[in-house]
Amino acid sequence: MALYNTEAISGWERFYRANFINSLTGFKSSSLIGTVNAEGQPNLGIFSSIVHIGSDPALIGYINRPMKAAPHTLANIRATGIYTINHIQPEMIAQAHQTSAKYAPEVNEFEEVGLTPEFIGNIKAPFVKESVVKYALELQQIIPIELNETFLVIGKVIAVQLNESIVSEDGFLQLEKASTVCSNGVDSYYNTQFIARYAYAKPGVAVSKITKSE
Amino acid sequence: MALYNTEAISGWERFYRANFINSLTGFKSSSLIGTVNAEGQPNLGIFSSIVHIGSDPALIGYINRPMKAAPHTLANIRATGIYTINHIQPEMIAQAHQTSAKYAPEVNEFEEVGLTPEFIGNIKAPFVKESVVKYALELQQIIPIELNETFLVIGKVIAVQLNESIVSEDGFLQLEKASTVCSNGVDSYYNTQFIARYAYAKPGVAVSKITKSE
Repeated sequence: MALYNTEAISGWERFYRANFINSLTGFKSSSLIGTVNAEGQPNLGIFSSIVHIGSDPALIGYINRPMKAAPHTLANIRATGIYTINHIQPEMIAQAHQTSAKYAPEVNEFEEVGLTPEFIGNIKAPFVKESVVKYALELQQIIPIELNETFLVIGKVIAVQLNESIVSEDGFLQLEKASTVCSNGVDSYYNTQFIARYAYAKPGVAVSKITKSE
Repeated sequence: MALYNTEAISGWERFYRANFINSLTGFKSSSLIGTVNAEGQPNLGIFSSIVHIGSDPALIGYINRPMKAAPHTLANIRATGIYTINHIQPEMIAQAHQTSAKYAPEVNEFEEVGLTPEFIGNIKAPFVKESVVKYALELQQIIPIELNETFLVIGKVIAVQLNESIVSEDGFLQLEKASTVCSNGVDSYYNTQFIARYAYAKPGVAVSKITKSE
């Protein structure tokens, strides 16, 4: 086992450190965020820092990098208050990853990478038609993180579209049936393989596996 | 495809909604956070809302539920300023999940669930000996999220211990070699299977796969 301390970490070349630290937090959700600007111009970007904030109300957050590094998505969310988050399936990984390129603000990433914008009901932001699991959010709060000029952007879930066949009796989503991928670091994608679900844990009682929705 | 709106979501039974919304964000990292209180009493809890904040400085956040629901870890972090985050391997899932039970504050979850506390160097918080990838953080900021009384807790990475064989030439960690599991919802655990790494994306250039560290 190797041990790395603060001095070692801060001395690494910056891309080496970025790869290492981005992997350190473990596997994560990589998803595509769809927005439009005030003129209705679509934008699509990949984000891997999506985080559950709460279920009632249904609040989901993501970390936006500093405005100078990643300006378009957050500017559009500020302008319209509405955005979509779309899961990534194996067939669309290359296109999804390509949205991380630094396109000019007037570029429509859907067209550039070959994914299809889909408008549902009266929701102003575009979904990704190819995504099997997708949801729309209404902006609630943008919290600046002054430590490194990033932002925690929190939205309330206002619509969800997915295939009913992945929903278990108790509301759990069998994401492996939707072939949702997960990611590691900034550029690596994985399939998943179900191991087990465990029942609600109680002190002094050994946890048991849930078998009904396997 | 089924479409669920705000009214449908807010009308669901609370455990159904919690399962659904917790799965909606996609696969995530489930890890064990190790702390001690002011008297040195160890505590261990499972958290699935760990999020990358930045690489330089190396900042990692997690969402702590309201103090009335999940008081011990955050109280200990406030008291000592130091905590560890430890990946979960398949062999320890049942023990890791068991730490989510509501134990009394004086209970040492390491003893209750059968995991081994490990102290490294002069770091006051316990690591989990059975974890293959683990790191220690120094508290930087606790940001209250007033929307639902949760907290974004941000720490700076001060030490990392892992098996050197998982580190690629460019710093990327091959977490599948460490058998780090990922999670879905509040109670479900998965293995992963590597698909591909992609090179840094540039506008107008089709992304290519990275093969050297596969």
